Amino acid sequence: MDSKIFNKELPMRSVRVTDAFWKGEMELVRTEVIPYQWEALNDRVEDAPPSYCMRNFRVAQKMNREKREQGEAYEEPRYIFRGFEAKPEDPQHLKNEFYGFVFQDSDFSKWIEAAAYSLTQHADAELERVADEAIELVCAAQQEDGYLDTYYIINGRDKTFSNLRDHHELYCFGHLTEGAVAYYQATGKDRLLKAACRFADYIADYFGPVEGKCKGYPGHEIAEMALVRLYEATGEERYLNLSSFFIDQRGTRPYYFDLEHPENGQNRSENDQKSEQKDEQTDELRYQHLQAHLPVRRQEEAVGHAVRAVYLYSGMADLARLKQDESLYAACERLWNSIVNEKMYVTGGIGATHIGEAFSFPYDLPNDTAYSETCASIGLIFFARRMLQIRPDARYANVMERAFYNCVLAGMALDGKSFFYVNPLEVVPEACHKDERKFHVKAVRQKWFGCACCPPNLARLVSSAASYAYTESEDTLFVHLYMGSEIAKSVNGRTAEISIASDFPWDGTVQIRVRAKGTALCLALRLPDWCEKYRIEGLENAGTEEKDGYLYIRKDWNEEDLLRLSFPMLPRLIGANPKVREDVGKAAVTRGPIVYCLEEVDNGANLHLLSLDAEAEPAVADGEICGVSAKMVVWPGFRQSQTEEGGALYHTWHREKKEPVELKFIPYYMWANRSENEMQVWVRIAESESFSG
Amino acid sequence: MDSKIFNKELPMRSVRVTDAFWKGEMELVRTEVIPYQWEALNDRVEDAPPSYCMRNFRVAQKMNREKREQGEAYEEPRYIFRGFEAKPEDPQHLKNEFYGFVFQDSDFSKWIEAAAYSLTQHADAELERVADEAIELVCAAQQEDGYLDTYYIINGRDKTFSNLRDHHELYCFGHLTEGAVAYYQATGKDRLLKAACRFADYIADYFGPVEGKCKGYPGHEIAEMALVRLYEATGEERYLNLSSFFIDQRGTRPYYFDLEHPENGQNRSENDQKSEQKDEQTDELRYQHLQAHLPVRRQEEAVGHAVRAVYLYSGMADLARLKQDESLYAACERLWNSIVNEKMYVTGGIGATHIGEAFSFPYDLPNDTAYSETCASIGLIFFARRMLQIRPDARYANVMERAFYNCVLAGMALDGKSFFYVNPLEVVPEACHKDERKFHVKAVRQKWFGCACCPPNLARLVSSAASYAYTESEDTLFVHLYMGSEIAKSVNGRTAEISIASDFPWDGTVQIRVRAKGTALCLALRLPDWCEKYRIEGLENAGTEEKDGYLYIRKDWNEEDLLRLSFPMLPRLIGANPKVREDVGKAAVTRGPIVYCLEEVDNGANLHLLSLDAEAEPAVADGEICGVSAKMVVWPGFRQSQTEEGGALYHTWHREKKEPVELKFIPYYMWANRSENEMQVWVRIAESESFSG
Repeated sequence: MDSKIFNKELPMRSVRVTDAFWKGEMELVRTEVIPYQWEALNDRVEDAPPSYCMRNFRVAQKMNREKREQGEAYEEPRYIFRGFEAKPEDPQHLKNEFYGFVFQDSDFSKWIEAAAYSLTQHADAELERVADEAIELVCAAQQEDGYLDTYYIINGRDKTFSNLRDHHELYCFGHLTEGAVAYYQATGKDRLLKAACRFADYIADYFGPVEGKCKGYPGHEIAEMALVRLYEATGEERYLNLSSFFIDQRGTRPYYFDLEHPENGQNRSENDQKSEQKDEQTDELRYQHLQAHLPVRRQEEAVGHAVRAVYLYSGMADLARLKQDESLYAACERLWNSIVNEKMYVTGGIGATHIGEAFSFPYDLPNDTAYSETCASIGLIFFARRMLQIRPDARYANVMERAFYNCVLAGMALDGKSFFYVNPLEVVPEACHKDERKFHVKAVRQKWFGCACCPPNLARLVSSAASYAYTESEDTLFVHLYMGSEIAKSVNGRTAEISIASDFPWDGTVQIRVRAKGTALCLALRLPDWCEKYRIEGLENAGTEEKDGYLYIRKDWNEEDLLRLSFPMLPRLIGANPKVREDVGKAAVTRGPIVYCLEEVDNGANLHLLSLDAEAEPAVADGEICGVSAKMVVWPGFRQSQTEEGGALYHTWHREKKEPVELKFIPYYMWANRSENEMQVWVRIAESESFSG
Repeated sequence: MDSKIFNKELPMRSVRVTDAFWKGEMELVRTEVIPYQWEALNDRVEDAPPSYCMRNFRVAQKMNREKREQGEAYEEPRYIFRGFEAKPEDPQHLKNEFYGFVFQDSDFSKWIEAAAYSLTQHADAELERVADEAIELVCAAQQEDGYLDTYYIINGRDKTFSNLRDHHELYCFGHLTEGAVAYYQATGKDRLLKAACRFADYIADYFGPVEGKCKGYPGHEIAEMALVRLYEATGEERYLNLSSFFIDQRGTRPYYFDLEHPENGQNRSENDQKSEQKDEQTDELRYQHLQAHLPVRRQEEAVGHAVRAVYLYSGMADLARLKQDESLYAACERLWNSIVNEKMYVTGGIGATHIGEAFSFPYDLPNDTAYSETCASIGLIFFARRMLQIRPDARYANVMERAFYNCVLAGMALDGKSFFYVNPLEVVPEACHKDERKFHVKAVRQKWFGCACCPPNLARLVSSAASYAYTESEDTLFVHLYMGSEIAKSVNGRTAEISIASDFPWDGTVQIRVRAKGTALCLALRLPDWCEKYRIEGLENAGTEEKDGYLYIRKDWNEEDLLRLSFPMLPRLIGANPKVREDVGKAAVTRGPIVYCLEEVDNGANLHLLSLDAEAEPAVADGEICGVSAKMVVWPGFRQSQTEEGGALYHTWHREKKEPVELKFIPYYMWANRSENEMQVWVRIAESESFSG
């Protein structure tokens, strides 16, 4: 890995986000999303399906107590947060039953992770108290041997790890660990971290390469990267080794999931008699959904459930970096290219089909039936940052930025109160209501989902946005996203202070104030792919080098230096690879990192009748939606006449009659905030004007 | 119904088809499809799922005998047809069990109907013998009370008519009746007709408006039109009245299907508590699939399962005609317009979604996920002819022609050996294999289906094509389709002989030789909608009138008159209503009644990169596919460059690079005869050439 420049996250508390845009998003998460989700976790949101998450922990805690303190009265703690009282069910009625999805514990873990990040940016004594109480409850649910998954604590420990393929125990462990590390790093409190370590130790005793240990691995990945994070927080090699074991074991034959589910193996045997080769392929199809069809180092194409896939690849990238594992890195690179060259929407969304919430085949990127799950795009950001940590290459950061500002932010309403699970690039509400093929596509955000993976995942990502904006190596601060912040970086025992100010994503001017006198600080500034020519001032006496899309700046820093960067943000038309059938003859409008879309509320119904005049000059205008300011784009174009003679379904073809109109584009992430209405990202390109009607 | 000109089918044996095109299709049905399907009905086609159809009749027959002749040995008849011996299972092994779909009996009925029509055009002693034997078997399965549905004969008569909603008894009765009438009209033999009458009498005793009789109606329609046909063949009013009862009863409240399935009613009661109005709508949605959501006279939009819908509408049109029922006719007219103005593919296919094999909402006509079932298009032809019988208006005949030459014929391979159930307008084989959303779309025809409605339905329609080409009133012969034939028509007690010759659908010249001296024969010739200007010679001394798309010709006929019609067939571009999202910016190529398509085998892969130069001159060329001659269309156009710089998924937009190519179109109905490959009907229209790169 000669050309690698390893780098790592900045310590969470050494970055203070000052950015207007991101601080707004973070405040929304802090003031709306985190409290709302706490209510949801406690089944107190009206008209939303109950989560049962905290209820399950309470039941598990109660069962633990009943076991330990037989006969003693059980006292239910009160959960009060900002005036809401938990009103737990009467303990008499806390029947020893598990409710909700098998992975319901993870709702808590994502929430505590989001709360942790939020606390690093904004002290909030009440949030911290509630979080501490919740942690106490969760820890009280832990079993004496360290096991901590309420589904099996409540339903019977004898079945522990009996269905790795479907039952998400290791997934819940992974999220718990992520939350525990985050809370420890944010607050210094190690109560939950210790619980996670005890659970990890239990798992490390159970699984592993040593004879007699279980050879299974997670059905839904995440434990792989969580274990790396636990290793990095604690220094305990056994966690790193367990992650390696899970990664290396995955997809080896005989398939562990076949051994676990002998009924599958039987199917295989029948096929065997027909054709061994055909059988191999059938087998592979069978476990593609779980990325367990082949050993990970032999995987070439991103397949299966998109969230699982990018979580796996993130863990692979972590291990490739820490173990300097070339073949694992090569697999990551292939899978990265498979995604970004063949399977990613222009919004950074991934997962083109709702069937299995999965990747479709290369270049199959339908806009109106897209799945493009918010969580999958979040996972793509995880993967991107980990690839950046191996080699700072703007290829990764460009995708990270694309996913962040577009697909991911679209997942949350501008008021933080409702969420998208699925992020289509074209919506006709009538079709969502009447066409069962599009029932997964919602035309408005939902308050909460029974399977509520996306909202809390979004909360933890937005709260920790700074750890994606910057990474560092010994002497270098990498700026991947231009997010306004105050950063303290230690270079050779001294502290350099870097203050970044920008009005991203609306304006491309960036001011970087550096106080690094006496340090060998190197600044590595990403040059975004959407900007052809940038300008920079303040480089007097500096040595600069452009490499892999980063501008490296070294100089003998003064008491204070000021760099002024300018990335002109011009409205741009984007074309898709001609292999993408759905986008042929169309273009998408972008400006800076923002992908734009048309909405019916601004452009009238039947958006498909609009076409864009590619030769015309677009204009940028200030606007706002629901009180949130943004730059809008107005692009001249045409509206095709909507009626045909006599309303016939078919007629002798003639050039379309069309009238000039202004197409009013809004940022994609802001869509569906003003009512249910049509939306469209890819717009037909009109013929040149001299040929129109 | 003042403006109506009622007309009826010609007697089957008074038309002899001489047409090269249709005779070819009919010979294919006679020599390939009918024998093949007989084998299929007897479970003797390798690699095709068994039908069990004749087996079920054999079991029912055996059970009948066992009941009647207890103790006597059962002797299985041998079924030998063109060298194939039936090899029936050892009767010891004919277990008293029903196999296959609940409507499996209808396979026989459609087959016998096809055989009947075929016999009217081509005497075939062996076919007639096999048909007679099969009829003997079926009649031997009939119960003493007249009941004749093997599913309940085998599974227990106590459950007869207990699940009208799902169990297709009345559907099987309907098909049996259609087959019986056809066989009687073709051969004069009434063995099966009598069986059908006995079954009809049984049903008429069971269902009806009189108190105490069952108030149900068919879940899957067809009995309605079959009963009308039985009435017309026998003159028995009770069959007409039973049809009326089924039609009038349908969709009335309380829903019969709710009474039959009380578990549905319960759901309704729960909803009741919330909102009566919402509930009405929910109810309607619930039975839209079966067109039983509203009384038929209140139905405005064609909804639900497309085959069922057009079978129902056909029965409604029959009754509207015979009973001169204005409100029923008005409903037919509304439903007709709903289909042809909002829900029909350019190929005459209907049913846009595979979910429920159903109509989608207005203008939702996706090309690549189309259902467009062969049987639905056949049913649309039934409906069209019945509307024509009320009022000869080319609106109906134009659609009939469109469906016949395109969607319906596409259902059968050129060698008559394989069939499409689903008829998409755009196919990418990779998507059919890899995208579960398109698994219903096949890129090649299949040999036989477990649910084999389409192949025998196609056989019966093609064999009876002449009854769609012509109808008659007292003095008028209506020519709806230009099919070469010798027709004998009785006018005021004398016989007029009309001989029609044409090379349709490839050439628009039609010669009509009339020997009608002394008769008051009126000829009504359809003026096709695809022809702007026709020419006609031989009208000396004739009185002519153009009305509703027909040219009416009356004259003092000579010993022999010759009319020469000419409908120029020029390649034409068709545009879709702008409300059809999937076709915006695209056009379809047609010539005469034929819709054309592009295939990969002629045009290379990635058909979506082709665009058509609408201003260029197309050419017509002779060609052939699998030995079948046809007129092909070559239209100048362009192929967009397939590769982008560096293979990136997204790039700064630029006008597409494209090179001129000749787009080679073949008739749609001939697609997928030369291998699995891409196909596309709707083609993007290119910008005018002066703007192309």
